[in-house]
Amino acid sequence: MKISIIGAGSVRFALQIVGDIAQTEELSNEDTRVFLMDINERRLNASYILANKYAHELGSPIRIVKTKDLDEAVEGADFIINTAYPYDPRYHEDGFQRWEIVTEIGEKHGYYRGIDAQEFNMVSTYTYVLASYPDVKLALDIARRMERLAPKAYLMQTANPVFEITQAVKRLAEANIVGFCHGVAGVYEVFRELGLNPEEVDWQVAGVNHGIWLNRFLYKGENAYKLLDEWIEKRSHEWRSKSPWDVQLSPAAIDMYKFYGMLPIGDTVRNGSWKYHYNLETKKKWYGEFGGIDNEIERPKLHEALRKTREKLLKLAEEVLVNPRLNLTEEWPEFFRKGQLSGEQHVPFINAIANGKKVRLFLNVENMGAVKGFPDDLIMELPVIVDKDGIHREKVEPDLTERIKKFFLWPRVLRMEWYLEAFVSGDRRVLEEILIRDPRTRSYEQVCAVLDEILSLPFNEELRRYFEKR
Amino acid sequence: MKISIIGAGSVRFALQIVGDIAQTEELSNEDTRVFLMDINERRLNASYILANKYAHELGSPIRIVKTKDLDEAVEGADFIINTAYPYDPRYHEDGFQRWEIVTEIGEKHGYYRGIDAQEFNMVSTYTYVLASYPDVKLALDIARRMERLAPKAYLMQTANPVFEITQAVKRLAEANIVGFCHGVAGVYEVFRELGLNPEEVDWQVAGVNHGIWLNRFLYKGENAYKLLDEWIEKRSHEWRSKSPWDVQLSPAAIDMYKFYGMLPIGDTVRNGSWKYHYNLETKKKWYGEFGGIDNEIERPKLHEALRKTREKLLKLAEEVLVNPRLNLTEEWPEFFRKGQLSGEQHVPFINAIANGKKVRLFLNVENMGAVKGFPDDLIMELPVIVDKDGIHREKVEPDLTERIKKFFLWPRVLRMEWYLEAFVSGDRRVLEEILIRDPRTRSYEQVCAVLDEILSLPFNEELRRYFEKR
Repeated sequence: MKISIIGAGSVRFALQIVGDIAQTEELSNEDTRVFLMDINERRLNASYILANKYAHELGSPIRIVKTKDLDEAVEGADFIINTAYPYDPRYHEDGFQRWEIVTEIGEKHGYYRGIDAQEFNMVSTYTYVLASYPDVKLALDIARRMERLAPKAYLMQTANPVFEITQAVKRLAEANIVGFCHGVAGVYEVFRELGLNPEEVDWQVAGVNHGIWLNRFLYKGENAYKLLDEWIEKRSHEWRSKSPWDVQLSPAAIDMYKFYGMLPIGDTVRNGSWKYHYNLETKKKWYGEFGGIDNEIERPKLHEALRKTREKLLKLAEEVLVNPRLNLTEEWPEFFRKGQLSGEQHVPFINAIANGKKVRLFLNVENMGAVKGFPDDLIMELPVIVDKDGIHREKVEPDLTERIKKFFLWPRVLRMEWYLEAFVSGDRRVLEEILIRDPRTRSYEQVCAVLDEILSLPFNEELRRYFEKR
Repeated sequence: MKISIIGAGSVRFALQIVGDIAQTEELSNEDTRVFLMDINERRLNASYILANKYAHELGSPIRIVKTKDLDEAVEGADFIINTAYPYDPRYHEDGFQRWEIVTEIGEKHGYYRGIDAQEFNMVSTYTYVLASYPDVKLALDIARRMERLAPKAYLMQTANPVFEITQAVKRLAEANIVGFCHGVAGVYEVFRELGLNPEEVDWQVAGVNHGIWLNRFLYKGENAYKLLDEWIEKRSHEWRSKSPWDVQLSPAAIDMYKFYGMLPIGDTVRNGSWKYHYNLETKKKWYGEFGGIDNEIERPKLHEALRKTREKLLKLAEEVLVNPRLNLTEEWPEFFRKGQLSGEQHVPFINAIANGKKVRLFLNVENMGAVKGFPDDLIMELPVIVDKDGIHREKVEPDLTERIKKFFLWPRVLRMEWYLEAFVSGDRRVLEEILIRDPRTRSYEQVCAVLDEILSLPFNEELRRYFEKR
């Protein structure tokens, strides 16, 4: 069994996966090899040191290998987890820096939160007008290597944009790709707030990645939307956001629920129309005092916090080398969980496929009739049962509402298609057309000016050349 | 044989149909009855007088009947042509007045050309955010009467918005509706400009109403797009618009052709994105010196001219009564053609169905697989052969480009769906959502303000009440 993590320099995520493997009975044995791959040597080393120590503390005999060579990670793998956000180390320390510069130029030209923030796709730090080019390219590169080196492996796409990348790889390569996201966990926030025992909720969500809706919601066999309606009537006025991430029952979520007829789940709440996003004041009205995580105050703070965490983990790795007696699981349980899995769907998926440990997950796979009115080959986020025989779609029942389909999913699907057309054609006019349809655009000249400036950034040289080809 | 024209107070159009019938051998006999129906007595009388006189001059024995009663027009009809633009005579003389007032309020709130002017649907005077409510309602009313009084008749929908109305009736009633438009005739302007003999062109267009594309274009068996490319390279710089309507080979059409890969035909050229429509200056750049017909200078002039024509025809009817020796076909051949059909598709359609006179037309009918990637029950404008057995779709070959489908047709289809959802639900929030996605919208408050003001107009009382229901 070979599991590879591409982008394992994302130390925290790599540790979650290693911790889950080490704590999964059927996987935690010396036949399991976990390949950590990254191009950043320092971060890769840190991941490697900490993962080894963590597995050791958990008493797991799994073998951890590190490599900077993508082919080595891919060759003969059974499962390849792609969590990499490529960036150009000549210019930046991480993908955030690139994103921040591009966002600032967008704002200068009248695009609040940058040109990549788009209707039904407001989740920051990745996006599709321009910023996702290296991410899609990398995923395709991995997929094409898999055709040669690991044709039976699963490519478990974790880096965003999951929707665009999964669809691109399905169309343009032969690899067996499945998209992963933990946004679905938002349902548990709903259950908690309504005081429901999760064991007694019969629920289902479906849609596209970052655009999922609670289509089935029964409590002890009864329609639980009545409980939500009651909460809205009696208690929603008391709701306060506890953090920038706490938006699952925000006024925006409730407003979307009232219009669309089902509750948006997880990141979907962040992905409404501009109604909720015109400016910080509007965002605060709809998402509570922080205005959500996708704004000019909270997003830079988050990036700083993530950088600090990264530095902390890098330092910790150095300390472990000096002092092997450090006890990670005891001293830093927030990074090194013991007796508890991370909640990520990856390892349960692997265990189901490899060992037949049947599990219900929410994965980004081809629709194949699960949601009516969308193409069979469209990647949708669906409830599935995974076992030794593979992925089995549940029947989506009740069906998503017509409003969800026509006012949210189809517009979102079209944006995916527009992006892929830009990516495949390398035609700058496609980027222009995407921006011409943007509610922040006032003139064609504005479109040209913002694209010119972004494409002439030194670190965008490859992008510039790519979008010169017609 | 009973043919009814609903809205026959549109004198000019009614005369075209009567002239076509009277000059069609198989139809021009005393068994053919043409029912002219309108609620405006003066206009109806004028139509009736002039139609009788015209048919007489053409030597046709068809019988013309006038009625103000819709049931009488519908009962037992074989073909019902709906060309009516309902308006409230307590407030207005015609639908244009209503449109002008609503457009002005839209402009006051920052919506250039009014809230009903929308991406991919810029054709003025009918539209869908608000203005089409009475038009859709009337067509449904006719369709429901047909269920009782003329269940086998064809409802030949001619009044705009043809796309929305035809789809609404298909979904919400049982009537056999077919949408008619003459926009396809734009291809002949292309042939003329390129110096092609129409007889030797193998061509096809397909799409949705006001969104059709020249998918097949062969001249003497060879790819004729090469001739267009040559024209663009060598002669397009000489192009000047001869009238506000002359846009078929305008820079906008060529720009759309270059992006979408096929030439937009007829009204499609007017229906691009905002790129061509931000303001009068932009419109002039893309549509020539008049800026097309859908702007603040040309549109009011057109309305004035149409009103003058109407008055002229009304006076002419009075003169005919006084002086029956007047010779209409000789003195006013622009209204009373002799030896030539109007070019409208209605009468050839009727003659094909009723008398088996096979004909190729371009009609708005259910897709049924003709254009891949769109639902079977979506109304699309398609090339068809009509004969005694009905309507037979041609194979659309080559298929429309992916860019036409993803960047034009799907967005346009979604706008139709949004409008129908507003119409069916009576939910004002749907109107709001349509405007929230409008590139001219800067805030939710702007949306509420413009809707409030339009809905509080005295003549919009019914609309106001309708959109209060949830």
